[in-house]
Amino acid sequence: MKCIIEYDKYCEFPIQNLPYGVFSTADNPTHRIGVAIGDLILDLKEISHLLNGPYLKNHENVFREETLNGFMGLDKNCWLEARNTLQHLLSGQNPILRDNPELKSKAFVKQNDAIMHLPAKIGDYTDFYSSIHHATNVGIMFRSKENALMPNWKYLPVGYHGRASSVVVSGTPIHRPHGQTLIADGTPPVFGTSKLMDFELEMAFFVGGKTNKLGEPISVKNAQDNIFGFVLMNDWSARDVQKWEYVPLGPFTAKNVGTTISPWVVTTLALEPFVVDNYPQDPEPFAYLKHEDKFNFDIKLEVQLKPEGSNTPTTICRSNYKYLYWTAKQQLAHHTITGCNMNPGDLLASGTISGETSDSFGSLLELSWKGAKPIRLTDGSQRKFLQDGDSVIMQGICKGDDYNIGFGICEGKLLPALSL
Amino acid sequence: MKCIIEYDKYCEFPIQNLPYGVFSTADNPTHRIGVAIGDLILDLKEISHLLNGPYLKNHENVFREETLNGFMGLDKNCWLEARNTLQHLLSGQNPILRDNPELKSKAFVKQNDAIMHLPAKIGDYTDFYSSIHHATNVGIMFRSKENALMPNWKYLPVGYHGRASSVVVSGTPIHRPHGQTLIADGTPPVFGTSKLMDFELEMAFFVGGKTNKLGEPISVKNAQDNIFGFVLMNDWSARDVQKWEYVPLGPFTAKNVGTTISPWVVTTLALEPFVVDNYPQDPEPFAYLKHEDKFNFDIKLEVQLKPEGSNTPTTICRSNYKYLYWTAKQQLAHHTITGCNMNPGDLLASGTISGETSDSFGSLLELSWKGAKPIRLTDGSQRKFLQDGDSVIMQGICKGDDYNIGFGICEGKLLPALSL
Repeated sequence: MKCIIEYDKYCEFPIQNLPYGVFSTADNPTHRIGVAIGDLILDLKEISHLLNGPYLKNHENVFREETLNGFMGLDKNCWLEARNTLQHLLSGQNPILRDNPELKSKAFVKQNDAIMHLPAKIGDYTDFYSSIHHATNVGIMFRSKENALMPNWKYLPVGYHGRASSVVVSGTPIHRPHGQTLIADGTPPVFGTSKLMDFELEMAFFVGGKTNKLGEPISVKNAQDNIFGFVLMNDWSARDVQKWEYVPLGPFTAKNVGTTISPWVVTTLALEPFVVDNYPQDPEPFAYLKHEDKFNFDIKLEVQLKPEGSNTPTTICRSNYKYLYWTAKQQLAHHTITGCNMNPGDLLASGTISGETSDSFGSLLELSWKGAKPIRLTDGSQRKFLQDGDSVIMQGICKGDDYNIGFGICEGKLLPALSL
Repeated sequence: MKCIIEYDKYCEFPIQNLPYGVFSTADNPTHRIGVAIGDLILDLKEISHLLNGPYLKNHENVFREETLNGFMGLDKNCWLEARNTLQHLLSGQNPILRDNPELKSKAFVKQNDAIMHLPAKIGDYTDFYSSIHHATNVGIMFRSKENALMPNWKYLPVGYHGRASSVVVSGTPIHRPHGQTLIADGTPPVFGTSKLMDFELEMAFFVGGKTNKLGEPISVKNAQDNIFGFVLMNDWSARDVQKWEYVPLGPFTAKNVGTTISPWVVTTLALEPFVVDNYPQDPEPFAYLKHEDKFNFDIKLEVQLKPEGSNTPTTICRSNYKYLYWTAKQQLAHHTITGCNMNPGDLLASGTISGETSDSFGSLLELSWKGAKPIRLTDGSQRKFLQDGDSVIMQGICKGDDYNIGFGICEGKLLPALSL
């Protein structure tokens, strides 16, 4: 597909992608909604009057808001129309933008000149645990190979409510936290800084569309109507804090240290060409979780670790979204089966995405096998867990024949603990 | 203290209480902030121009908003000034309201004519597990008397992130949910409606004041500056769903069925006369959790159960907020020790509040001892768990020599499951 903006053939943001984000610039601190195209951002506030097709004409205001919640809350007809309209404008099939130099100069901003913000006001954030390889690895480490998966794991997408306030956008540094940890069973806990800081390679989707009322589950058949788009996520984890605190009510302060997401929301529409078979499920899921259509995606994921002062990040993990056992549709149907009400802008994360092989594990806990097998970085140093100054950089790419679709970068640096 | 509004001596809302809420009326659907006084509500939108002391004069707008978040987000000087100003106006010491019949007729609304709403936009909701008697009861039932409390329980206030979207105001009915449950260990789970629906008697506080940034814990010494006020809470629980799903990441869909709170937020300032000794703690808590000042309150709590069609509710539990082992200050300090950022309007709940005696247990799980000891209602029927049509009514009262302070009612009715 032609585009009035030039970009490299395999750039992350071709005209087939068009992910949404929220940005500001040094000379205009107002948060605006934009779409990434090549190295640029198309400022939708400047062209909201052009997003005026039959579905959107009464909703132009959503493109002038400071978050994507309003647009996410429209229905899939609106999402599709916005995508088609933007492709028409950017391809030049509709010449209005192409032939208006003044509008073009106002409407396009260099990504390098933009400050990215959270794409939406996140009402609630939930984290699932849907990678069978990750759950199995953790189960083997903390229990045994025979009892690696809990009895409920293959019957329902295990998940827990997370902390929405501590979800931050890529680039936000995270401080090593303080907390209680247990040095040895049977001894009293100690208080200090976490010694076992880790990342978790995840993806997450934003809820959109007309959502359900309290008491009314979302049917797995219709769940796609409420899945707006996806981001990369690093769910920072203080493993030692988690181990001591999590019984019996689950992870708490070990997780609210911070959760980093990539700024560009890649829509489900853009991901459609990369759909692959769902992960085989045995036993067969209950009817409320069963869907025949494919809703799994071939998204190649990569984690790099860059120590303080180093210029050469080391790729420490290559994984793929497609390894997830439970689909996003199943996650949403299960989340709401007891009647939980969803809102546009809610964020539902996959849990750590690990593949089968040891280089595809999505956390240092697994990569270093609880510290037993330190991993070697290109600068010669080793890691069991994160060190102060380490940056964790996640990327995601869908590779097509003629073009790629990328998610941009999900990056965060671990800073030393603040003194209390 | 005199009041220009007449009320019974032991009414719940005397001039010493002045709880804040959000209401609307049939003839004016705008949500407004009000203060309960006797059987009336003082509409603060109508008198916002009178809340103009040195601290509030630049913040009058917060009293014209549709939620309490703005007012909660001001500091304790503002909270105290608002309270003092309202007491001056309502006592007639300041005659402006007393002597203005026109303003009075606009500013006072009968509580019976008001529709109550959630007092704040709840950003995040957290549920603790801070009653030692409750945690011990559950531990005995599901483990043994010897191992009733988990090793971490006396070292930190165990808690978990909850679902903010499903917090509803008193009066909102709750549907019995569907979900997966396990009939017997080793058999596959079944799908159907929850058979073990329960309430949990809790209290919760709203966060306010200038809150912390991500990465910066709130010190236990200053935690009180971030505790705006308290409400009653019923944390509806599908026990059978919970038991099957909660390993290893904690309660999830069993809890997002709905969580009911009372509409009136009783301020920490109003509770000060009812402060009592903190619960004795052994072992001594870590420094980050230690505070010498009293922050425990004598709040008599009561739960009534009213079957469908019955006019005679049965009191099934008499408990007290003072039984909590961990204080609200400790909860807040622990919640933020890893750097979790708080926002005004966040809601932190106590967990089920059970006393020592079997009539003070705060859930049917404990009252009926897992169904082994059904409780008898005044209409002759028995309960192990909730039946469709049951209303659960919670009340809380602080009894003083000359006046009481009440929390109003936290009520919800369990409706039959919707068909899927």
